[in-house]
Amino acid sequence: MAALLALILLILPAAAVAAPPNIVILFADDLGYGDLGVYGNPSIRTPNLDRMAFEGQKWTNFYVGASVCTPSRAALLTGRLPIRNGMMSAKNRVLFPDSLGGLPGDEVTIAEILKPLGYATEAIGKWHLGHLPQYLPTKQGFDTYFGIPYSNDMDKTPDAPKGPELWKHPKIEYFNVPLMRDERIVERPADQTTLARRYTEEAVRFIRQHKSERFFLYLAYSSPHVPLFRSPPFAGVSLRGRYGDVVEEIDWSVGRILDALRDEGLAGNTLVVFTSDNGPWLIFDEFGGSAGPLRGGKGSTWEGGMREPAIFWWPGKLRPGTVQDLGSTLDLLPTIAAITGAKVPADRILDGYDLSPALFGAGKSPRNEMFYWRGDKLFAVRLGRYKAHFYTRSGYRHRQATAHEPPLLFDLGVDPGEQWDVAAEHPDVIEKIRKLAEKHKASIRPVKDQLLERSPTALTSQAGISTKVIRLEAAN
Amino acid sequence: MAALLALILLILPAAAVAAPPNIVILFADDLGYGDLGVYGNPSIRTPNLDRMAFEGQKWTNFYVGASVCTPSRAALLTGRLPIRNGMMSAKNRVLFPDSLGGLPGDEVTIAEILKPLGYATEAIGKWHLGHLPQYLPTKQGFDTYFGIPYSNDMDKTPDAPKGPELWKHPKIEYFNVPLMRDERIVERPADQTTLARRYTEEAVRFIRQHKSERFFLYLAYSSPHVPLFRSPPFAGVSLRGRYGDVVEEIDWSVGRILDALRDEGLAGNTLVVFTSDNGPWLIFDEFGGSAGPLRGGKGSTWEGGMREPAIFWWPGKLRPGTVQDLGSTLDLLPTIAAITGAKVPADRILDGYDLSPALFGAGKSPRNEMFYWRGDKLFAVRLGRYKAHFYTRSGYRHRQATAHEPPLLFDLGVDPGEQWDVAAEHPDVIEKIRKLAEKHKASIRPVKDQLLERSPTALTSQAGISTKVIRLEAAN
Repeated sequence: MAALLALILLILPAAAVAAPPNIVILFADDLGYGDLGVYGNPSIRTPNLDRMAFEGQKWTNFYVGASVCTPSRAALLTGRLPIRNGMMSAKNRVLFPDSLGGLPGDEVTIAEILKPLGYATEAIGKWHLGHLPQYLPTKQGFDTYFGIPYSNDMDKTPDAPKGPELWKHPKIEYFNVPLMRDERIVERPADQTTLARRYTEEAVRFIRQHKSERFFLYLAYSSPHVPLFRSPPFAGVSLRGRYGDVVEEIDWSVGRILDALRDEGLAGNTLVVFTSDNGPWLIFDEFGGSAGPLRGGKGSTWEGGMREPAIFWWPGKLRPGTVQDLGSTLDLLPTIAAITGAKVPADRILDGYDLSPALFGAGKSPRNEMFYWRGDKLFAVRLGRYKAHFYTRSGYRHRQATAHEPPLLFDLGVDPGEQWDVAAEHPDVIEKIRKLAEKHKASIRPVKDQLLERSPTALTSQAGISTKVIRLEAAN
Repeated sequence: MAALLALILLILPAAAVAAPPNIVILFADDLGYGDLGVYGNPSIRTPNLDRMAFEGQKWTNFYVGASVCTPSRAALLTGRLPIRNGMMSAKNRVLFPDSLGGLPGDEVTIAEILKPLGYATEAIGKWHLGHLPQYLPTKQGFDTYFGIPYSNDMDKTPDAPKGPELWKHPKIEYFNVPLMRDERIVERPADQTTLARRYTEEAVRFIRQHKSERFFLYLAYSSPHVPLFRSPPFAGVSLRGRYGDVVEEIDWSVGRILDALRDEGLAGNTLVVFTSDNGPWLIFDEFGGSAGPLRGGKGSTWEGGMREPAIFWWPGKLRPGTVQDLGSTLDLLPTIAAITGAKVPADRILDGYDLSPALFGAGKSPRNEMFYWRGDKLFAVRLGRYKAHFYTRSGYRHRQATAHEPPLLFDLGVDPGEQWDVAAEHPDVIEKIRKLAEKHKASIRPVKDQLLERSPTALTSQAGISTKVIRLEAAN
């Protein structure tokens, strides 16, 4: 009997690899832990994501690799903390339209590990890992790309008003953000009101086109990052105002994509993951999201900055339910490699784990720790249920870090809101975390800071990309 | 076509009444808005309630009639604000073991409107509407009763330590709370570790006994009110600590009750409602719950005090999904009357509405306002999406009310956390709410304050009830 069981266990992974599934990653921008119905939002309706969570797995201790856009995206695609590849910087937190850097070409993305297996790959939406030609998605394993190369609030035009008016009543023409297909600008400024709809149509088209092959779709919504634009059918639909409208359109989009998978008979052979790049941008009040019961938001190393909604869906394969184990976007690359049989790069440190045991119900997540970096400092470390803060900052705009000695310590199980410091009661836990932190820091090697250099020559209008506003795809 | 539709609409309610369903109300004690998985708690697992919400309706704007136990329970059972029947007082917020009052006998409860239709009725759990013989459940329409007559933290014994030790390491013998069957004490002190389990067994037995009749079950858990006791299988199971253990045992209990209904083939003919009597008791830190994204907790007229999780379940009958319409425990009596054909008392003001349109998908909830009373003052009024605070208090123990002129105004759709006062932008809304408040206050008549009088003669040990500790039912 034991031998039979061992045999079955040996066969199972091989069987999974024999029919590697399609992979779809849906990645929201600045969506907070508390912004979906199934994560407790009282005002935003997300029936499609709620259903996805009920049919699949809802993770409640799932982290991103950084609390702002650029480094978080680098972490997801490479399975490596951005401090390892120059995508996290002490000076600039993200890439700007005048930045010269990007994700280095020798970094290996999820798309790149899947290409040798014959996967068709597409990146849709916000990239934000370098907009110079050598950094575009097509240079990082994606066959095609359709989206905006950096954040939707960048490239402000002279028409853009100063102050809150810009967020209260945003207009397309306030932002000169380009929309690109592959390596060409196809619309500028991008018509942001229809972006979510066009991303969705592009995604469904890609799924249908490649339904007989294997595919990897990475759809990084450029919302609900401010400015908040939504297509006409979603204007005013949400109790939660403009922010809620935008999230409800994302929910609609997720519904259309899951419907397409079901319609094409692909639901049983596609792993879909939905999560967000970082917590809510609280300084924008009602135009930012909510971290629900968590403390802090985007930019911070409090839980609200880096713990995100995360829903896994693969009907008939995943064990449905709520998962309280630790997980991270850093784990997606190793997990996808394990599920598909793809090879992970063996010549570098990866920060991710294979989450298969938790996904398929065979065991627990192997992840037991999380590192919260900010710039060049390790601000906090979670080990099991405890999190020690060595540094904190009081807000998104606050520049000065406060050091804590001994570190603040929170029991994130009992106290997900990080309200009650228990450092005095657990000196042993602090010692363990201290050792783990030192070991981890010793594994970090100096690399070139990709976010540091900025120059007008890097602006998309001067980077060998046509600036002519062509709306070839406006009819989509 | 229109005539046909009208005919169908005429027939539908009659058909519903022709086969009146069983009614089960499950009522938690001090459970906060953010304490269930499906309402966003990251640390507490509630798979049964999550499934109940997915199969049924999850309401996100559902209110109780008061922010503390006694008046909230009076509101649920009578459909009337407690200010109308003396169950809300300026001096005492709830009934104590030495209180002389209770829910007046001429108030009409849900049990009393269902009795004439032949329903079997049982109250299980915490009563807290008067423990003198004339106020017990058996005098308010319930055939039988099994539970504790007031809160589980009352009747402290001389053994009870002062300070936090009482909540950190509670012991049965610290609380001399009696367990009653009908009008007799059957155990004293009640063995609180097994109460939730015994309530559940009692409920399942009642359902099985009356499966061939119609029944109304009112199960008011005495938890997760402090002190936090749970049965051995639930000790230490929750990431959220002792509080989480207790909520997870309630979830288990709900699962067993729904299973019993399914097993007996009653799911299609039973309306089950789950909610809580008021928000989390925040002064107890980790031994209290969480209001999630809402402000304040038990005792306050901020949303966290009176907006509660509320799940309706009636497979095949209710339109499943999330409901953002306003609802209240005040609406249960009129709704149950409409569904069963029971008669509501015509000689008094009711504060509830028939929620059938929202439950069955035919339309919206008729409720458009909510009144937040505290003691003898109308503290706040919600009208549509706006809520005006005429008075606030800064915390549970704070005695002094702060008057606001103009009132604070919050848009609860955009701002469920009541962070951004918009009074200056909406003087018209404030005027409307002011008129509504005046009209409402004019409808209140002076009545005897049932919570005012206290005397040692009211103690259960001297109220004609045997104090002999008999554990006749301890083997249950």
